[in-house]
Amino acid sequence: MNDILNQLGQVLEERRRADPATSYVASLHQKGINKILEKVGEEATETLLAAKDATNGSSETRDAVVAETADLWFHSMIMLSHLNIEPQAVLDELARRFGISGLDEKASRPAS
Amino acid sequence: MNDILNQLGQVLEERRRADPATSYVASLHQKGINKILEKVGEEATETLLAAKDATNGSSETRDAVVAETADLWFHSMIMLSHLNIEPQAVLDELARRFGISGLDEKASRPAS
Amino acid sequence: MNDILNQLGQVLEERRRADPATSYVASLHQKGINKILEKVGEEATETLLAAKDATNGSSETRDAVVAETADLWFHSMIMLSHLNIEPQAVLDELARRFGISGLDEKASRPAS
Amino acid sequence: MNDILNQLGQVLEERRRADPATSYVASLHQKGINKILEKVGEEATETLLAAKDATNGSSETRDAVVAETADLWFHSMIMLSHLNIEPQAVLDELARRFGISGLDEKASRPAS
Repeated sequence: MNDILNQLGQVLEERRRADPATSYVASLHQKGINKILEKVGEEATETLLAAKDATNGSSETRDAVVAETADLWFHSMIMLSHLNIEPQAVLDELARRFGISGLDEKASRPAS
Repeated sequence: MNDILNQLGQVLEERRRADPATSYVASLHQKGINKILEKVGEEATETLLAAKDATNGSSETRDAVVAETADLWFHSMIMLSHLNIEPQAVLDELARRFGISGLDEKASRPAS
Repeated sequence: MNDILNQLGQVLEERRRADPATSYVASLHQKGINKILEKVGEEATETLLAAKDATNGSSETRDAVVAETADLWFHSMIMLSHLNIEPQAVLDELARRFGISGLDEKASRPAS
Repeated sequence: MNDILNQLGQVLEERRRADPATSYVASLHQKGINKILEKVGEEATETLLAAKDATNGSSETRDAVVAETADLWFHSMIMLSHLNIEPQAVLDELARRFGISGLDEKASRPAS
């Protein structure tokens, strides 16, 4: 439970219970699943546009792709939180598909 | 470099150089950025639909949300790979925003 | 009822009742709302990519934007059909917002 | 040039040249293609969510689907305008695909 996405997952759970007046995350939960999904769709669109600009070497840069992808992953994690799904479930699914042993390997193996 | 997304990032780099005839990842890279971004958009849409079905308690389940989100993150990682961006750059951006110490904490501690 | 979108709406209603084995439109209806919405999302993504390529003057051309926008409008009309909404309802909404009198003016007024 | 989308196309061309401080359409053009495409992606997402809610019989209604589809078509028309493509080009493409004679039939026939 020490990687960034799981730590972020914990932060998101705390903020979910914060005051919607001061927490962006809490305000999204209060507005409901449609508002959260609108943000996921919006960030997906912005990621595509940043990636196209990075490919075409125009004004947007590699940094914009990183920032937009972070926005996309962040809002999809709020979606998971809203549905009471831990991000680890997604990571486990990815690990399963690609034969990656995941965090458990560190505990079970002498060295990586 | 031992969490799941970074391990997956390494797998994706290997597959990028594989034979497009046998590797889905290599075939996407060969088809180019538009094909990769079409997949990101497609998986974003499928994630939204699965999340709506999970919310409405209809046939799609929590498992579908996990699977579609995994597809979304996976294809956005292929996009990053195509643009020569490591997934750690996105994780670092998320850690920076939320004051999460991330992987560096492991280096600063005696053992993981 | 003589403009292209309304004529297309009539064609789509006929095809909705056709054999799914031979009609793409009927097969989409049979697969259900999620499949139809996946296509809307997919075509929206392809429209964005074509528009970016047209803007950047790369290989995709103006023709691709026209073709992808046609795909987007076409699939959103199948969505409307699936929900038993006539395309005229959308046109009327647009006319209402912009103070456009619409098709009826031609029949009822001596001149525009 | 007398159906609603073509009339709307003319309105959009006029507003494109209006003062961005007072015209939403002019302000989108001034902000550029990415802002316009973000809106197309955003409205596509909102259309999907409204359609899902209409299907599931929840709070959103048929009216929301009409309004969101109008938003989607409207913003895709601003995109076309930004690229100097007339909406008739998209309608002609749809007419061509479906063997619809389009507006020309009215000129060639004694009565509609």
